[in-house]
Amino acid sequence: MSEEGHQYRASIVREGDWILVYLNERRKFLVRVRKGEVLGSDKGVLKLDDVIGLPYGSKVKLSTGYEAYILRPLFHDFFLKYRRVTQVIYPKDLGFIIFISGISSGSRVLEAGVGTGFLTTTLANVVKPDGRVYAYDVRREILEVARRNLELSGLIEYVELKLGDIRQGIEEKDLDAAFLDIPDPWNALDSVHIALKPSAPIIAFMPTINQVEKLVTAMKVHGGFIDVNAMELILREYIVKEGATRPRTTMIAHTGYIVYARTCSKQ
Amino acid sequence: MSEEGHQYRASIVREGDWILVYLNERRKFLVRVRKGEVLGSDKGVLKLDDVIGLPYGSKVKLSTGYEAYILRPLFHDFFLKYRRVTQVIYPKDLGFIIFISGISSGSRVLEAGVGTGFLTTTLANVVKPDGRVYAYDVRREILEVARRNLELSGLIEYVELKLGDIRQGIEEKDLDAAFLDIPDPWNALDSVHIALKPSAPIIAFMPTINQVEKLVTAMKVHGGFIDVNAMELILREYIVKEGATRPRTTMIAHTGYIVYARTCSKQ
Amino acid sequence: MSEEGHQYRASIVREGDWILVYLNERRKFLVRVRKGEVLGSDKGVLKLDDVIGLPYGSKVKLSTGYEAYILRPLFHDFFLKYRRVTQVIYPKDLGFIIFISGISSGSRVLEAGVGTGFLTTTLANVVKPDGRVYAYDVRREILEVARRNLELSGLIEYVELKLGDIRQGIEEKDLDAAFLDIPDPWNALDSVHIALKPSAPIIAFMPTINQVEKLVTAMKVHGGFIDVNAMELILREYIVKEGATRPRTTMIAHTGYIVYARTCSKQ
Amino acid sequence: MSEEGHQYRASIVREGDWILVYLNERRKFLVRVRKGEVLGSDKGVLKLDDVIGLPYGSKVKLSTGYEAYILRPLFHDFFLKYRRVTQVIYPKDLGFIIFISGISSGSRVLEAGVGTGFLTTTLANVVKPDGRVYAYDVRREILEVARRNLELSGLIEYVELKLGDIRQGIEEKDLDAAFLDIPDPWNALDSVHIALKPSAPIIAFMPTINQVEKLVTAMKVHGGFIDVNAMELILREYIVKEGATRPRTTMIAHTGYIVYARTCSKQ
Repeated sequence: MSEEGHQYRASIVREGDWILVYLNERRKFLVRVRKGEVLGSDKGVLKLDDVIGLPYGSKVKLSTGYEAYILRPLFHDFFLKYRRVTQVIYPKDLGFIIFISGISSGSRVLEAGVGTGFLTTTLANVVKPDGRVYAYDVRREILEVARRNLELSGLIEYVELKLGDIRQGIEEKDLDAAFLDIPDPWNALDSVHIALKPSAPIIAFMPTINQVEKLVTAMKVHGGFIDVNAMELILREYIVKEGATRPRTTMIAHTGYIVYARTCSKQ
Repeated sequence: MSEEGHQYRASIVREGDWILVYLNERRKFLVRVRKGEVLGSDKGVLKLDDVIGLPYGSKVKLSTGYEAYILRPLFHDFFLKYRRVTQVIYPKDLGFIIFISGISSGSRVLEAGVGTGFLTTTLANVVKPDGRVYAYDVRREILEVARRNLELSGLIEYVELKLGDIRQGIEEKDLDAAFLDIPDPWNALDSVHIALKPSAPIIAFMPTINQVEKLVTAMKVHGGFIDVNAMELILREYIVKEGATRPRTTMIAHTGYIVYARTCSKQ
Repeated sequence: MSEEGHQYRASIVREGDWILVYLNERRKFLVRVRKGEVLGSDKGVLKLDDVIGLPYGSKVKLSTGYEAYILRPLFHDFFLKYRRVTQVIYPKDLGFIIFISGISSGSRVLEAGVGTGFLTTTLANVVKPDGRVYAYDVRREILEVARRNLELSGLIEYVELKLGDIRQGIEEKDLDAAFLDIPDPWNALDSVHIALKPSAPIIAFMPTINQVEKLVTAMKVHGGFIDVNAMELILREYIVKEGATRPRTTMIAHTGYIVYARTCSKQ
Repeated sequence: MSEEGHQYRASIVREGDWILVYLNERRKFLVRVRKGEVLGSDKGVLKLDDVIGLPYGSKVKLSTGYEAYILRPLFHDFFLKYRRVTQVIYPKDLGFIIFISGISSGSRVLEAGVGTGFLTTTLANVVKPDGRVYAYDVRREILEVARRNLELSGLIEYVELKLGDIRQGIEEKDLDAAFLDIPDPWNALDSVHIALKPSAPIIAFMPTINQVEKLVTAMKVHGGFIDVNAMELILREYIVKEGATRPRTTMIAHTGYIVYARTCSKQ
């Protein structure tokens, strides 16, 4: 396809596209454009026929006259339609986890504890097209949900979903980073140490401070991890009005703690 | 080069490699391995001859007996050696900014306000190998420092450093995202709106709440931006000891606010 | 009355006492003990006859078998039964405001913006028995609610509720501290400066950062205020379980900003 | 002394007064006015003879021309001159601790772990003139420092400093509240439960989360404590400039956790 053709495709809504319909801050809908179908909401109905051929970013009106915008989804907008089977990792944590891992396009990474697949999706979006996410989970049904979610976002091809327990061993070697969202990461330190490239980072996400203490303690005992850091990120949102700006009244105060370390030689 | 050759190269320190010498949490040194040279520190001296041929992750001893680890640098470890000419954007913010932008390998992105180049480097690491960072700054000498910094980290080839004022116009079109770290982003809204793909995200980073208010207000007046969010991220670090875990006593309490929006049609 | 009699009265529930019935963290009821009356809740009913003569701290059973505790109310437990007519100041802020003001039993203090009366009550509890709270509000109906609330907590005798606008002047002189919870404290600086003892503190509470900026700027222009500080307090609650401790998931992220200063000579 | 005499005394600096000399945010000096003496600082020298007879709040000039203000100290300004022998409890925590305890003038309270005496001083300032602080510490030399500190602030008469270990028992009974700043408050639960009035509050302050977990767990096992809450307070300061307002860059991120509970019957 020519460059022009690509541009055309990219800027105009076509049948089969996934679009993000933005009504307001609390009402964003991810929907696939199909002729004859509608998107319903408490603010009115949108006929999807009407959006075909519109440029992305266009303003449209629902049946009630309520205004909406047709946006091209970003990869994380697909999270809106993910079936949730576990507690998810939040955007504030996902971005930081990726950054500190240092991975990029082409990296080969381990993930353990796939769950809903927010992290898997994010990792796939980073390592594509030539990298790979080896994503382990011990629950077959969870993996099935993750597969469906990843297919939705179009990133499944960069992920190898694996039924298995990384505490028992990891099939891959020379991985660039490991991401653990399992209840007892301290039991996987041996496996991870072997699977990672020398000096590569390991990052774990845990809801309780007790897990942090256990993991950090286990890393010290193991001897093969240095540069160990325990952190958490807090996101504060603001309500911005000219002359009356202030933080939002309520917030998510806790999602989880992040432990970061790098592998080293044990001697 | 064969896959095996690549693995070999990757896991053994060779002359010319950049290595991260890790002494402790507060003493990490990025240094290039040259025969006959030494790394000096207040904890002792390391002869670089001695690290050639060692596997990454190895433990070595300084002249004083103090132990150190030889690590393969991650892309952000190069920040340690960047010459700083401006206030930098911190890792906690960099990761989040990238995540919410939705960019990935192959994206073509705008950056305005290059400064020391932490964000430029991070963007380059994301969009490589086929994407591009168009990085504007109005200060020629700043761009020179950024160039030297980017060369150091080996990511300069994915960046086009441009002397120019984006408030006067942006040469590129159909960009996937815009990242602004300039004092008055509200004066660049017209230019950015034209340069971005329809519905693409714009992200600005600002130290004061007054700038946030001005930018958000200007976005509303402009009419071509929706999904406007103002946020800040706070990183809390922990001192983890078995039976005595607690947050670190002091912290960086503020770096900057983040404003995120997506472009839309103005009608 | 003998010391023994006092002790007896204090430790046994008698008719007419206000008691705090504690079912669980989310179900605390302040009720006055009257023969023949009951306290109803979704967890069951408590006959108040049954608590008369019990020592404070006793465990009782509701009609359903659900356990409750009979506690002697602290002064701030009465807030539970206050009729709320305005946004209230939270405990985290009340304690800090009192502390930095340096007031104590016997102090004579100004309050402006009475509202629901949480701050008025707290001030009265501090300055009693010989001090006085001069509590201004411009809204007669608000003052009536505050009066009823203060009567409930038994602290009305230490408060003089005054219908009036402190921006027009304050009748009292030589006050030990001023507490402002009004929308435009910058318009009351002249009045407050005159009413306070030389070098006494002024403390203002405001929801938006713009008000903080206006007030601090006005203080500098006025010239009669030094030691100016702008702050906010954030309360984080924890869910403590052995082996699974973590911060509560959601929190109140913002109530208001606090500005503190001391008066000084204007020359 | 007549009321008029008191007013006169209060508003004019006299020999023997403690005054707060305010140079700027980081330079506040508490000094006693003695004829012929001087206050030295890196900004210049103040002859104390020159301040006698001035009204409080007056502006004066140091030898260098640098301006200073003469302020009447608040009770907590004396902390500036306290000899510090232990980690202190910060104002943000002191105010909250007092508030949630519900104490006021006349209350009889227990304190364990006197340390430098910041909390002791604050408690004395609240309960005076008819209440009493029973302040235990196991270290004789610490108590001596606390005594000197409390004498400085003029509040020693409301405090009974006691050498003793509350884990072995508390001599007082029917206390209105207990404040614990000791390493192992869980070992004092029996003693405190007996010493407090039925249903009175106990408040403990601890630096590590492990202590919080141990204390809360011990309270549940003990059975005589309900309404158990674990919290921490975070103070954020702002740099306020017209058009350029933002949080201070660094902050104290952690002082300690607060556990609050009320006693109840054990059956």
